[in-house]
Amino acid sequence: MTAWLLPEQFSDVLPAEAAAVETLRRTLLDAAAGYGYELVIPPLLEYVDSLLSGTGQDLDLRTFKLVDQLSGRTLGLRADMTPQAARIDAHLLNRDGVVRLCYSGSVVHTRAPSVYATREPLQFGAELYGHDGLEADIEVQQLAVRAVQLSGVANITLALSDMRVVRGALAGVLLAPAQVDAVIESLARKDRPRLQQLLAEVPRAQRDAVLALPELFGDVSVLERAAAVLPARAPIDAALRDLAVLATIHARAGVDVQVDLADLRGYRYHSGVIFSLYAPGQPDALARGGRYDEIGASFGRPRAATGFSLDVRELARLRPLPPAQAAVRAQWSAQPGYAQAVQRLRADGEVVIELPPGAPLQSRRFAFDRELACIDGTWQLRPLAAA
Amino acid sequence: MTAWLLPEQFSDVLPAEAAAVETLRRTLLDAAAGYGYELVIPPLLEYVDSLLSGTGQDLDLRTFKLVDQLSGRTLGLRADMTPQAARIDAHLLNRDGVVRLCYSGSVVHTRAPSVYATREPLQFGAELYGHDGLEADIEVQQLAVRAVQLSGVANITLALSDMRVVRGALAGVLLAPAQVDAVIESLARKDRPRLQQLLAEVPRAQRDAVLALPELFGDVSVLERAAAVLPARAPIDAALRDLAVLATIHARAGVDVQVDLADLRGYRYHSGVIFSLYAPGQPDALARGGRYDEIGASFGRPRAATGFSLDVRELARLRPLPPAQAAVRAQWSAQPGYAQAVQRLRADGEVVIELPPGAPLQSRRFAFDRELACIDGTWQLRPLAAA
Repeated sequence: MTAWLLPEQFSDVLPAEAAAVETLRRTLLDAAAGYGYELVIPPLLEYVDSLLSGTGQDLDLRTFKLVDQLSGRTLGLRADMTPQAARIDAHLLNRDGVVRLCYSGSVVHTRAPSVYATREPLQFGAELYGHDGLEADIEVQQLAVRAVQLSGVANITLALSDMRVVRGALAGVLLAPAQVDAVIESLARKDRPRLQQLLAEVPRAQRDAVLALPELFGDVSVLERAAAVLPARAPIDAALRDLAVLATIHARAGVDVQVDLADLRGYRYHSGVIFSLYAPGQPDALARGGRYDEIGASFGRPRAATGFSLDVRELARLRPLPPAQAAVRAQWSAQPGYAQAVQRLRADGEVVIELPPGAPLQSRRFAFDRELACIDGTWQLRPLAAA
Repeated sequence: MTAWLLPEQFSDVLPAEAAAVETLRRTLLDAAAGYGYELVIPPLLEYVDSLLSGTGQDLDLRTFKLVDQLSGRTLGLRADMTPQAARIDAHLLNRDGVVRLCYSGSVVHTRAPSVYATREPLQFGAELYGHDGLEADIEVQQLAVRAVQLSGVANITLALSDMRVVRGALAGVLLAPAQVDAVIESLARKDRPRLQQLLAEVPRAQRDAVLALPELFGDVSVLERAAAVLPARAPIDAALRDLAVLATIHARAGVDVQVDLADLRGYRYHSGVIFSLYAPGQPDALARGGRYDEIGASFGRPRAATGFSLDVRELARLRPLPPAQAAVRAQWSAQPGYAQAVQRLRADGEVVIELPPGAPLQSRRFAFDRELACIDGTWQLRPLAAA
């Protein structure tokens, strides 16, 4: 009798919410098309070698594995579509210049980041390949802000950071991947004691540079403080310069900009400027993105790359459910003219719902406001008192 | 260097085709909404017990299995969304009257029915619950015909059949599930010798009834022949009577109707009237559907049920690719008024694609016909010679 229970953190999206998700999904794809982003639909399953190419251990652990009966090889159920888009850019399209791709599809995680999160987000994303200038970063950040605004969220904050800062701070130091992950996690939690412990063996100059990062968050003035506090190394200088340009441009467009040089969590293959979008009352970022110029190389074709993605289901949940759509009540009938009348109404964009006589409409998606009735020999609409 | 190869019978859908798939997907969901079908989004993964509830061995074999780390239980990657919709109707919505649900999502198969078929169809379907009258069958058949017509396919044939005929013919005979599958397969191939072999132990009256079926295909007159040839048993009589009503109604609406009482292939949980849609030059059915009144019982709540589904990707492939969409060429610029001009154009529904100076647009989805230029101090559109 439990045949209808779903696994933890998987759920059905029921009619009213599903309509909101579908509407937002279309709005986002149309917004991306307005910038020239071309839709691609990568497969749900790929060989794990391909699916995890150029990504980290974290994505590997979050990816469901299964066996392909045809090849005997291990397949992965995608946990992220960005690497798939990078693969398509690198190989299938084989274009040299600027390529813009967008996508929208389910991704699945073995474990969710929190007990409240879903294990099946509906990922929407837009990726720009082949341009390493800041124009590309500005564009994807603007599109990300626009996407979150289109979902109805107001008072968005754009949080900027850059992977080159911590890389520059640790220049010349070799850390194991697990240690890098631990440093990034401790930076995000601003956990100084843990950082000191993790970096005990690291030369003082590098350690001090990393230990300075947890203090470097706030408004744009943080960038000046950072320039004064952090060592003058090329990647750090380039990062601070780029962030200053981006902050100025977004501030001019009326976007609230924050900088947090220690917030590098949730970025798995990024290499330069990164960003996330926050809204009041939402503890988690609503969208994340940034540069990942190195992932193409793992597909044998290095390409400048920047983009962002977000969970359409999560964003749709932030809005009030849409009101029920007006519909026409009709009774299945074999009388002359009836079928034609129904067909004509539907062709005009009306929702016509046929029911047995007297049957109630049990729906939160549609509500009857008129009925189709045969009056004086012709089929006509007449108003219906609200139920 | 093979990190970009995909598993056999999985593929990326690239921009031009993806745009066609997305357009058709929206058209189909909107058509279903016009009939009052409410969108639901069931999860990609479920416990296998639930996912395969009330379905047959064939679906089990076609379903990828994986292990849930959280529960230790076996999950299935959905191979069919119809049973998921039935589960939602039976449990989540808990409505007594007529319920209409539709869905569109990827399903995945361990093996495809042919070497040319994809293992990841994009299933679109519409299901009507809670009404056992023929009105429900007529409606889903009409909607299926409409869906295939909306995809641009002409000269559709509606092929009708009924599971009750073979059930009635074999009344009182107990066959193993594998034997039933073999009989259905041999009926579809009209393989008399194999049928005789399979039914060697079956009493003569029943065997003769089954052996008559392969001849019972053609136009509506088949139903009269069937009534003369087949034994008079209640399920057979009911089936022939229902099929005659359906055939008359569809013929009156101008739909080409064929009857094939031996074509029961590809129906996994159906119990009554079944149908499939064919088009000239297409060997496989473009849509399939029918009654499956028994599946709800496996979720603990028996419900009348009928519906259909189709592969959006397959249908989209039958159309010529859409022409490239007109777009405006622009060059990223920090000049005054530029950003506002671009924003205004996009708000008006224009596609504005920003590129570095001189860079070509490598796209089959968009083509430039105008460019944004600063003329006499204001940003204006001007025509662009075709590249």
